[in-house]
This record gives sequence, C-alpha cells and structure tokens, in this order.
Amino acid sequence: MRESLLVDLYELTMAHSYLKRDLNDRATFAYFVRPPVTNRSFLVFAGLDQVLSHLERMSFSSDALQYLGGLGLFDRAFLQYLEGFRFTGDVWAVEEGEIVFPGEPLLVVSAPRVEAQLVETFLLNTLNFQTLVGSKAARIVLAAGRDSTAVDFSARRDHGADAAVQVARAAYLAGFQGTSNVLAGALMGIPVVGTMAHSYVMSFPDELSSFRAFAEDHPRPVLLIDTYDTLAGAANAARVAKELRSRGRELAGVRLDSGDLAAVSQAVRNLLDSEGLPEVDIFVSGDLDEYRIERFRFAGGVAQGYGVGTRLGVSWDVPALGGVYKLVQDSAGPRMKRSPGKVTLPGRPQVWRAEDGLRDTVGLADEVLPGRPLLSPVMERGVRAWGSPELGELRRQVRATLFALPEHLRSLAPEERPSYPVAISDRLRQLVQRL
Amino acid sequence: MRESLLVDLYELTMAHSYLKRDLNDRATFAYFVRPPVTNRSFLVFAGLDQVLSHLERMSFSSDALQYLGGLGLFDRAFLQYLEGFRFTGDVWAVEEGEIVFPGEPLLVVSAPRVEAQLVETFLLNTLNFQTLVGSKAARIVLAAGRDSTAVDFSARRDHGADAAVQVARAAYLAGFQGTSNVLAGALMGIPVVGTMAHSYVMSFPDELSSFRAFAEDHPRPVLLIDTYDTLAGAANAARVAKELRSRGRELAGVRLDSGDLAAVSQAVRNLLDSEGLPEVDIFVSGDLDEYRIERFRFAGGVAQGYGVGTRLGVSWDVPALGGVYKLVQDSAGPRMKRSPGKVTLPGRPQVWRAEDGLRDTVGLADEVLPGRPLLSPVMERGVRAWGSPELGELRRQVRATLFALPEHLRSLAPEERPSYPVAISDRLRQLVQRL
Repeated sequence: MRESLLVDLYELTMAHSYLKRDLNDRATFAYFVRPPVTNRSFLVFAGLDQVLSHLERMSFSSDALQYLGGLGLFDRAFLQYLEGFRFTGDVWAVEEGEIVFPGEPLLVVSAPRVEAQLVETFLLNTLNFQTLVGSKAARIVLAAGRDSTAVDFSARRDHGADAAVQVARAAYLAGFQGTSNVLAGALMGIPVVGTMAHSYVMSFPDELSSFRAFAEDHPRPVLLIDTYDTLAGAANAARVAKELRSRGRELAGVRLDSGDLAAVSQAVRNLLDSEGLPEVDIFVSGDLDEYRIERFRFAGGVAQGYGVGTRLGVSWDVPALGGVYKLVQDSAGPRMKRSPGKVTLPGRPQVWRAEDGLRDTVGLADEVLPGRPLLSPVMERGVRAWGSPELGELRRQVRATLFALPEHLRSLAPEERPSYPVAISDRLRQLVQRL
Repeated sequence: MRESLLVDLYELTMAHSYLKRDLNDRATFAYFVRPPVTNRSFLVFAGLDQVLSHLERMSFSSDALQYLGGLGLFDRAFLQYLEGFRFTGDVWAVEEGEIVFPGEPLLVVSAPRVEAQLVETFLLNTLNFQTLVGSKAARIVLAAGRDSTAVDFSARRDHGADAAVQVARAAYLAGFQGTSNVLAGALMGIPVVGTMAHSYVMSFPDELSSFRAFAEDHPRPVLLIDTYDTLAGAANAARVAKELRSRGRELAGVRLDSGDLAAVSQAVRNLLDSEGLPEVDIFVSGDLDEYRIERFRFAGGVAQGYGVGTRLGVSWDVPALGGVYKLVQDSAGPRMKRSPGKVTLPGRPQVWRAEDGLRDTVGLADEVLPGRPLLSPVMERGVRAWGSPELGELRRQVRATLFALPEHLRSLAPEERPSYPVAISDRLRQLVQRL
C-alpha cells in the first residue's frame, strides 16, 4: 500500500467531492519552483523517472481501501472509484539532468481533475527532493573541479533509508562518482566506494598493523591516516604502499578526515611524492560542501577525491525546495491563483531555451517561439513515451553541461535573491493582464 | 533486500577483514549527538522502536548476497557468514520521547565486533533523523501552547515518501495532533487531518458555492478562506456555518494561509464572534515554524490550530543531527578516539538524571550514582525486552513533560552554543585522563 497512499488527506476529500458533483473535467497542472531560491543560481531537474514509474503503477490496494473506508469520510462510490483507479493522463516534462531555473514550468500534467489532484503529493515530494539534491550536488561537482571526484558519504545523516538511496541517485545524476551506500549501489546500479573507519585502526595494536591488514584484505585500499598523528600515519601508509608495490600491487590512496585539511594535504602530498609515490591519491572528508571545497582548493589543498556527507544529503544551506503544483487550465479556460505572493501563470505552458545560451522564455504551449522547447511529451494516456533513462549516460551529459556553464552561473557566491534568465512571452503576459 | 543493505561499504570491508583475522571479539559502541546543536536547548530521543525492529529482522537476502558477491571485494567465507547473519547483541537505550541532551550516550550496543559494525549506518540514519524531527516538533508544540494543536503538513517537501511517514511519526510522538499524510495514518495509526486547497475553491464558479459543496461533502469541514479576499471569505464561511447549524451540523473551522496572519486572524475572529460563531476554530498555515508561531501569538494572533509543513519536515534551521556511534570498549578494555575535535568518552556508559530536575551525569555502567538511570536494557541477545510502545501513550507523556520544562529550556531564543546540564562522573573523568 505504500506509495499510492502518499497523498495529503485533502486531496482525497476534494477528489471525493469532485466525483460526487461530476466536476471531473480535464484539468492541467504545472510544477514549478517558486523564485528565488537562496544560494542557487540554477537547478538540476531530477526525479522524473520515479514520478513516471509511480504514475504507471499507481493503484489502491485492498488494505489501503479498508483503511480509507474506516475514516468515515468517503462514500461507497468513491471507494469503488479508487479500487479501479489508474492514472490516464498526459505528462510533459523537462529531461532529467537539464539545467533549469526557478519560475519556469518543469512538468505539466493534463488529466481528469481527480487524477491530476491525487498525484500531487507524490509528485511534489519526489521532484522537490531529487531536484534539491541534484542541484546541491552539481555545485559540489563544480567546486571539486573537472579532474577530481566527489562521492556521497551521507547515508548516516540522510532523512531515512529511502532518502539515502535517493540522495545517492540525485548526486550521481549530477556528476558524483559514486556512493558509500551499498543499498543505493544494489538498487540503482551506482558505483559503491569506501575506505576504512577510525574504529578499524583502533582495533589493532598499532596503526601500521591495521594498515597492513587492510591492504592485504582489500583489493584497492584507501588508508585513513588521521586516527593518531596524520604525518606519522602518512609515513606508515607510504611504507605499506612500498610493500604492496614490491608484491606488484598498489595503494589506491590515503584519506584525511580532520585538522586543517589544506595544510595537511600539502604536507601529506609532499611526503608521498618524496617517497616516490605520486600515484597514491589523497582523499579528503569531514563536513565538506561546495564552499569548503572551494576554500580548501583556494588555500592550496591537494586532493584527487572528496567524500561529502551531511551537507550534501540534506542540502544543508537550502534543505527544501519550494516547488508547487498549480492548476493552470480547466474546461473553463486558463486559471491563475491571485493570493498575495502566490500568483501563478495561467494556461498550458511551454519553455523555449535560446539556441545561443541559457536564456529561457515561458510562453503558452500553442505559441511558436524561437529556441529549443524544453517540455516534451513523456507520458500519453498513462503510458510512458519511453523507458527509464540510463543514469550513467545522463551523468556524463550533466557533467559536460556543468563544466560548460557560463562563469556567472558557476559562481558559488551566495546571493540573497539571485536573478534567473527567465522571460515571459508577450502572449502570456497579455493573458495574465486579461485575467 | 532493502534495509539490511543500508550500510556504508566500509562497514562490509572492515567486517570482512575482522572475520578473516578472527578479530570478532565483543565490542561496545555508544550513540550520542556531538554538542553543541545550534538552536536546540534539548532533544527528544526518538527512533528506538524502528532500530530494535530492524535489529530483530536484519538479514541478507540471496539478491543482496549476489550483488555483494559481484563487487569482487569479499571472499566466500564472508558471504557465507552474511547468509547466516543475525544480530545477537545486547542494547541499552533511553526511552523514546525522553528529553535528552547532546554529549550524553543515548543508546549502547554490545555485540561481536562485526555485528556491532554492520548495524552502524541504519542505526545512525534512524536515530539521527527521528530525534532531529522529534526535537524540532517539540519546539513547535511549545510555541503553539498547551491549548492549541499543531499538525504535520510537510509531506510534499519531505525527503521522500518514507521520510514523510517518519516525520509524521516523530512529530506525533513529540506532541503533534496528527498529520495530513494518509500513508503515515495508515502505517502508523496517526490521526489524519485536512482542509481544502485553493484549487478546489477555483474549481467552482464562486467561493460561496465551493464552500457549500465542501461542507455538504465533508463531515467536519474546515474552509480555506483566502483564495480571493480573506474577509469576504470569512463572511462566506459564516454564512455556510449558519446554514449548517440550521441543519444540526457545525462548521469545524476556517483556514488562513497567506497575508499578515496575526492581523487577519484577529479580524476573522471578530467577524465570526460577531456572527455568533465562537465555536468555529481558526486554523493557520503557511511556512510556519516555532519562531513564526511565537511571533504570531506575540502580535495578538488568534488560532486554535497550526498547520506546519516544510520547516518541520526538514528541520529547517538544523537539517541534520551530528549523531555518532563510537567504539567505547572491546576485549582490550576501554577505548577512546583522540582525533582533534572528535574526542569520545571511553567505557560502557550510564547516565543518571537528578531526581529534582533536569541535570544529568554521565558515568561508567558499573558505578552507582544518585538519580534515575536513563539507559536501560531494551534488547538481550538479539531479542527485544518488550514490544513496540503505543505511540499515543508516548505522545501524552511527552506533552506533559514538555509543558513542565523549566523556562530556560523552553525558551526558543537562538543560542549559538547552547550549554547543556550534563556533567561527567569523577571515575569517568579519571579514566579519560589515564587514557
């Protein structure tokens, strides 16, 4: 019964009322993120695959119907409707991994009003969370730079087991190298990575024996060298690296998790290089995010890889995205909400992106404007237009796009109210004024 | 295969190495939250029930073993060990819903080292998240006051479907009245509540007909009155309330979701009272949290209920808790970590709470100190000491405790580095110095 019941109760009570009153005309809803989003000059759209899979599978089990019946809110006809429920609507959306901006429609649903209403909570929950983490991860990928890797270490601080899997997915989509989360690896086919913990080192009489043991038992060992004294740890790691080399193997790297990471990384790099071990990578971790990675690099820190946990997994500086799903059209024509500060754009929308750069225009779907339309049909009458995308392929595209972004969009500088390159078409503006 | 694989890869590679080397001695790990936690003068411990259920059920399916075998990291003996895995350790913990503080041990695991290691990520993920949301919810309950209710509206902004269910649970445990999340209602037995959306109002030719329709179709209607003009909406709601009264029914309330909530709530209260409708409750929502509810009340706002979404569900001002799980003892005796800024207390711990108030002392489990011991045995040799607690009963206890807290702990005033009433026993202090 799990995901189909992820609805806010009012969606069911409203649906009940619509059906009773034969108000089940075709309605169109648009998903967009309210501008501005603090500290984000762009977003990475993510979560579409999960939404479409959900829409295809959505149904109410007998357990679910029994629970709903027991609430005393719904008549028999409504429960029978739910028993036969399946989503039959059309969906247009931006491609997963696309760079997008607050204020522009990213997904549009057109369906009988009740169906369009009952998918709201799942759709918002999924797109808001995946886009949130994808957008945070993209900033970390940019801060780490084209030649370094970032990996997801967030599982222990994410908001539940399912969140941990979804964080790993969105981060990978946005250019991360992999995750420490084995469940995400198993379910999503994401590469899994890992080093060792301080408790492992402490389980041996001394650091050197712990390093030797780990290197023997792991095909690509990365040694954590800061349990006692980081430079002594680096010397022990160098010794083990040479022992491995004499047996035709290689030490993959060392990890630093505490102290002044920039200074320590330089000292460790010098020690490893002076021992003739330039191939041993340095991997840093410890409450990292894009700001701290940028400062680390600015201070001359040297690392081939970054392990990023808490601040990625909960998108620390912006822990939720204000995405909304609003009625834009029904059988009475274009609709708009006029509550103070919560105005919406009316009519079924389209977004055109200029061919020569990241400038978008939001207009009406039946307009023809210059540029590439971002919203394309992804589901017709409840059936997906194509299967799930290959995550690794999306990831390669996103990385290429990120490192080609113009400087002002790549900048991490916090802006309280960032401006986005999103315009409104003349016809849409006239429609807003008319309503 | 889902939750047992929620491990960080390094737990498996370390476990593999421990087993190979016969390093599977009995080890004790303690869970605690590193102090300080910004903006929190106390925490509400939560998530124990989920952890114990997980430990009882934990096993590796054939799918999981096949995936792990394919990673090329583990030998046959380790995969066979995992095939027969079950958790056989002992667990001591604080009771769910207890008021606790950063720096003190909240859960202790004693088990063969490999078992204790393999439960780390799930345990941290669950306790960190549940305690995070429970602690945030408790502050909102205090801000709303003893005579008002708070309900969870966060599903659309939580970090996935599972997170939404877990948020509803932790908030209910900490004193919330219910949730809009139907899945949480079905799975956790939490009361579900809901009103109506602006799109419902907009689906009718005018507001009054939408109110009449909703009141007819819902046994306890709450009308959203701010779609067009809030005071006109309140007048329409009053008209519908009187129509209901003439038929022996009652309007449960009206909801305000925009504008200057304090001023608007006063005006709406006056209107309803002057129409002879003092029984119609006012329900407010719209990006609320404990700070905004406090300001709303301070400004003379009048409400019987608060709908709290995003800022509860992601614990907006502190979106993750820095809970850690550290080795404190093994067959070689008490252990402590000495990395800069990450020192841990050695030995198997106990916490004593003074009988006359909220002052705690952390000591060693074999000490006898005055006060009530907070850690009690909850699992022996992998079997729970008792079943799942009744959430509603825990909730009543938590509410009573919260409203009896001393003033300095109830205060919402943000403190950058709050101080906690947690002391260290003499014997534990001596042990730290010796190590």
